[in-house]
Amino acid sequence: MKIKVLKDILSANEQIAQANRHLLNSKGVFAVNLMSSPGAGKTSLILETIKALKSKVKIGVIEGDVSSSLDAALIGKEDVPVVQINTGGECHLDANMVSNAISNMPLQDIELLFIENVGNLICPAEFTLGEHKKILISSIPEGDDKPFKYPLMFNKADAVLINKIDLLPYLKFDIQAFSQAVKGINGKAEIFQISCVTKQGIQEWTSWLLTKMSRK
Amino acid sequence: MKIKVLKDILSANEQIAQANRHLLNSKGVFAVNLMSSPGAGKTSLILETIKALKSKVKIGVIEGDVSSSLDAALIGKEDVPVVQINTGGECHLDANMVSNAISNMPLQDIELLFIENVGNLICPAEFTLGEHKKILISSIPEGDDKPFKYPLMFNKADAVLINKIDLLPYLKFDIQAFSQAVKGINGKAEIFQISCVTKQGIQEWTSWLLTKMSRK
Repeated sequence: MKIKVLKDILSANEQIAQANRHLLNSKGVFAVNLMSSPGAGKTSLILETIKALKSKVKIGVIEGDVSSSLDAALIGKEDVPVVQINTGGECHLDANMVSNAISNMPLQDIELLFIENVGNLICPAEFTLGEHKKILISSIPEGDDKPFKYPLMFNKADAVLINKIDLLPYLKFDIQAFSQAVKGINGKAEIFQISCVTKQGIQEWTSWLLTKMSRK
Repeated sequence: MKIKVLKDILSANEQIAQANRHLLNSKGVFAVNLMSSPGAGKTSLILETIKALKSKVKIGVIEGDVSSSLDAALIGKEDVPVVQINTGGECHLDANMVSNAISNMPLQDIELLFIENVGNLICPAEFTLGEHKKILISSIPEGDDKPFKYPLMFNKADAVLINKIDLLPYLKFDIQAFSQAVKGINGKAEIFQISCVTKQGIQEWTSWLLTKMSRK
């Protein structure tokens, strides 16, 4: 019975996600669903991507959080359109929440839309939002065993960003073992090594993103 | 409708949790529900606590993960009873899963039972398991804004362990601001600063735990 309810919810979600995707396509907006554990660096990555691309691309941001609007306030300082979604306890964004947020965004002024999901490595993987790409950030302090523990999330990602790479000297993290585990779960995922502090990898990441946008 | 289903699930969960608690009490077992983000250090804390207390207290561990039994294998090396729960996609442990796990544990040989929850700062807060104390690990790399973003989890914790304190020199984290935020949400939570690398704070944490066990 519980499974039946979940299937109904996921099917309804899929329909709304397709409508979101159709609307975004009609307006020429490329949408990225950004997912990670709490504190892995989603907001920092968005800020660095805005800095790197804002002279080339018009960017907008939807911020998803259980509570608070701290991240939206940070993003707002960059002078890009931002809409906050507070899920009020829900552990993921769904397509309906994103549909409401999109209706409050100036889509004609946006080419690249970041949707920052709730910090959670489990449930967000089950809910498509109408995005063009799913990006997973996995940070060095979380450890290199995460692909084995959260396989669905790693399986669904179009790219995996290994963030906080500047902390590598201070922590045990086997980049090669991690990358092999990711490839075992998801042969198509691109892997980037990133630091929002030293800016390592930001150029490679933003180049990849621009290429994907141009091929949409 | 969705909320009704959730309420029914939570109410059924509460009943099973009370039965778990009753069974644990009858066997003289003190149970701790350990919660955190992925990779915040739950398993490392359990390992350090076992090392510090194993000459004084008989310890058992229930390991909760979406997938894999990596942590159970690590704990098993310490020669304590360990049972793995794989939730198969579920984002939290519930009382029924713990009931099944307990029935596979030699309770007569256990005084302190760690229940390591799934790595998630949201859903585990809603499901009581029959535990005596809820412990939240929040690690330095996650950032000092987490109490504002995940208020229910911080509200429910009997103690908050600030882990990976050895990384403080390399990261921005305002201990005082974090502690004030915790106290604002939850005036009764004890706060400890911990490192499983340098062992800072382990003695204070285990002393607190022994005191709580003796007052059960």
